[in-house]
Amino acid sequence: MITGKNYIGSQLIASGSKTYKTINPQLNIENPWTFTEATPQEIDQAVTLANNAFKIYRNCSDHQKAAFLNTIAEEILTLGDELLDVYCTESGFPKGRAEGERGRTIFQLRSFANMLTEGSWLEATIDTAIPNRSPLPKDDLRKMLVPLGPVVVFGSSNFPFAFSTAGGDTVSALAAGCTVIVKSHSMHIGTGEMVASAVIKAAQKHKMPEGIFSNLIGSGVTLGTSLVKHPLVKAVGFTGSINGGRALFDLASQRPEPIPVFAEMGSINPVVILPGALEKNSQKWATAYAGSITLGTGQFCTNPGLLLGIKGENLNQFIRQLAEEIEKIQPSCMLHPSIKADFNNGREKIRAQNGVTTVAEFKGEIAPNYASQTILTVDGETFLENPTLRHEVFGPFSIIVQCDNNEELETIINKLDGQLTGTIIGEPMELNNYKMIVDALQNRVGRLIFNGVPTGVEVCASMIHGGPYPASSDSRFTAVGIHAVKRWVRPFSYQNWPDELLPEALQDNNPLNIYRTINDIITNKTI
Amino acid sequence: MITGKNYIGSQLIASGSKTYKTINPQLNIENPWTFTEATPQEIDQAVTLANNAFKIYRNCSDHQKAAFLNTIAEEILTLGDELLDVYCTESGFPKGRAEGERGRTIFQLRSFANMLTEGSWLEATIDTAIPNRSPLPKDDLRKMLVPLGPVVVFGSSNFPFAFSTAGGDTVSALAAGCTVIVKSHSMHIGTGEMVASAVIKAAQKHKMPEGIFSNLIGSGVTLGTSLVKHPLVKAVGFTGSINGGRALFDLASQRPEPIPVFAEMGSINPVVILPGALEKNSQKWATAYAGSITLGTGQFCTNPGLLLGIKGENLNQFIRQLAEEIEKIQPSCMLHPSIKADFNNGREKIRAQNGVTTVAEFKGEIAPNYASQTILTVDGETFLENPTLRHEVFGPFSIIVQCDNNEELETIINKLDGQLTGTIIGEPMELNNYKMIVDALQNRVGRLIFNGVPTGVEVCASMIHGGPYPASSDSRFTAVGIHAVKRWVRPFSYQNWPDELLPEALQDNNPLNIYRTINDIITNKTI
Repeated sequence: MITGKNYIGSQLIASGSKTYKTINPQLNIENPWTFTEATPQEIDQAVTLANNAFKIYRNCSDHQKAAFLNTIAEEILTLGDELLDVYCTESGFPKGRAEGERGRTIFQLRSFANMLTEGSWLEATIDTAIPNRSPLPKDDLRKMLVPLGPVVVFGSSNFPFAFSTAGGDTVSALAAGCTVIVKSHSMHIGTGEMVASAVIKAAQKHKMPEGIFSNLIGSGVTLGTSLVKHPLVKAVGFTGSINGGRALFDLASQRPEPIPVFAEMGSINPVVILPGALEKNSQKWATAYAGSITLGTGQFCTNPGLLLGIKGENLNQFIRQLAEEIEKIQPSCMLHPSIKADFNNGREKIRAQNGVTTVAEFKGEIAPNYASQTILTVDGETFLENPTLRHEVFGPFSIIVQCDNNEELETIINKLDGQLTGTIIGEPMELNNYKMIVDALQNRVGRLIFNGVPTGVEVCASMIHGGPYPASSDSRFTAVGIHAVKRWVRPFSYQNWPDELLPEALQDNNPLNIYRTINDIITNKTI
Repeated sequence: MITGKNYIGSQLIASGSKTYKTINPQLNIENPWTFTEATPQEIDQAVTLANNAFKIYRNCSDHQKAAFLNTIAEEILTLGDELLDVYCTESGFPKGRAEGERGRTIFQLRSFANMLTEGSWLEATIDTAIPNRSPLPKDDLRKMLVPLGPVVVFGSSNFPFAFSTAGGDTVSALAAGCTVIVKSHSMHIGTGEMVASAVIKAAQKHKMPEGIFSNLIGSGVTLGTSLVKHPLVKAVGFTGSINGGRALFDLASQRPEPIPVFAEMGSINPVVILPGALEKNSQKWATAYAGSITLGTGQFCTNPGLLLGIKGENLNQFIRQLAEEIEKIQPSCMLHPSIKADFNNGREKIRAQNGVTTVAEFKGEIAPNYASQTILTVDGETFLENPTLRHEVFGPFSIIVQCDNNEELETIINKLDGQLTGTIIGEPMELNNYKMIVDALQNRVGRLIFNGVPTGVEVCASMIHGGPYPASSDSRFTAVGIHAVKRWVRPFSYQNWPDELLPEALQDNNPLNIYRTINDIITNKTI
């Protein structure tokens, strides 16, 4: 059941007068629910509760937090098909995607719960005392990670489950011991409310402090701005556009007390196709590339928007094969009429540039919010000279740059903005001949893929989803995988502290049985 | 030999016309050397060289980097007594301090070299492929830390060796694989040039790329501003005042491509003295506290500028004992006439506030740049109401706040800005009775000390030197200890990359024999 209200802690509240409705992009009509936007008082109340809750939650054990996260997963599953239906209604995605993304969200919750249960994530580091050291004795010092405080999470448009209400940012912050205030993404507020109800139920089952989680509604920028500027907020997670992410980063940097913002903002995810691959596996990679740019109607941060190759007959053949593949894929629905409009505008802006020609485009009839996947092409020199050609077009779109030679290819890579991913498609033996290109690409991206496509972001400890600006606002952190928790923690030292009053992670007898660094040696032993 | 020139890479260059002289604060005269400030062209040249050098240096092995750092240590020692003499001449510190700080600097260089030799700092994390996973195969993913790019280091005033030219920021950045441009602190440019010559010699011995290190001279803000705004600079390290650090943070945040700034800015390092300690060990702690605030003429980031206790006869006795100790310590020289002037002005501003009285002050004759150590006192209510009383006075100064009760004490702690350290002095059995106070203090600081003084920052893996703003600009990092390297690196993933082309840290057979996390298990085994 969707009430249309804000969760201020566990309370459903809607004292405001401004209302809002979501869209069904498949039917191109408004959905039935009416959502009431949070008032300034409600926003302040949510943050104040989160700050009070933090004083308690930050001292919860990792086992308590793990149980809480696992229960959130169960409560989401308990919402059953009704949740999937609301998700599809608000996103335009098919049910298979809804199920897949719910699975990913559950997996994320359980991954962080496992991380907490295992316990070594705390980076416990101990240097024992040397009382008789000369000229000065050495005190005992013990360090571990502690949470920052209340975290604001901005839900994403393109992952209504996995990067929204109880998605990667929320779950990593809760795992860290931070309390969370979500700004529900305005395109899927009904989905958000249902998922929020699961978080609240889990919090109540585990007797978590009131205010550990709130879910707020707002269609404009006021809600987000108020949250980022609130003095009790200590960090921000965001997934979305460069303009949106940068605006929040600027607000947070200009506060009297600046706070960290991790914004995952966007990328054109360059793919370099080497001559060997063009010669031996052209059709295979044309099929894979067409599939990658149209997956989820191209609405992925890791969508490959740029393909770089060396001019020639083999590249021409690849382009023909790619065009055939592109034209036979059935278009699909975008998330929202505004996203469809942005897609069309972005694509036409690039198509209108000098030297750009169309390679392929789906040409049949399409429904109102559906996108015609499109491939354009341009030569290397033109691409280098015109920064407009390097702008992201969010949706099933890619531009192929035909370079004169390796030097031009390397120059282009060095001129690219920071990217989430870079991909090299080639024969293994070729890589050594392109060391300069691999090196240049490595310096511009967070993840380097060989013979694959950038879409499909595995949730695991070795994943980096982030990269040099503007792929993300701070390349030193990832948004996906358990190490995403590091965004919300700080290291903290106890000096000469009595053993029995230390957190368990730092006690001599290692009651958590975790790996620690003791006097520079990694071990799970006691002291 | 001091030439007065900039090191632009390995070249001593001084094409500018603006010159500068350092001061001998003990004698209150100018030193003989004339330093030529870097021109805009020289600044750009240093950064461009650093960027070119980065392309080579970032691929150096950890063993090569370790050897380089160890040779820097040796070359500093080779400079012998001449270096110590210049240090004393420019800082006003005695020779014992010069030797001690040189030892600390050497120790830091060797600690980072040891970290590199051991190798597990790279946080190598591997998730192996599952080709037959359903519905989709899982690719092989391998992650490690990689360097950010050229780093600008601002030397500190108060550590001419340990936090300047080849100090903690420089050595951690070089260990990370970043190239470094130092803005030499204008109070000890001669010391800086000599240490820079040692770095350059070591770089040449190890055939490091030209431009791996530059050392620039500038007395105003132009040099620093130009460096932080330069598009090829990727991170900044700073130790100094809140105003200076914040200005650099703002500049860096406002760049088209924002870059991380780690600024360690300042702190009043609150010390809470509990009733048990006042009753049992009053004299001992009075002696220790007096020693801590006068060490190095109070010119430490961790100088205890605030002591909090509960009103009563025991606190009165402690104050009398502290006054006696303070009055019998001989004053010492400050780093510079401007620092002495700031000390006097800051102290008098606080002394002039309503409700503030003087507890103790050295009253004898003192030389021009010497500081009279001073203790003031005020009651809790007055301290709470007047934010001026919470300002740092850099030098041998402390204010004692006499609280009415525990509630007032807790309220004061919650109102404090972020701090590098917090200290509790008490009987071990008492701590449990002051859980709220310990908890509140823990949330405001980076390091919590029991029964000690905050000065004396051990260089080890468990040290945190950093803390909530404005102690530092990002509490998620430390400036001291080997983990200071984390400021200058980002995690990076290889997906499906051929084993023989991976960095050694990520190869199946673990040629570096390091600890890695493989499929969520910490191990030093091969795959």
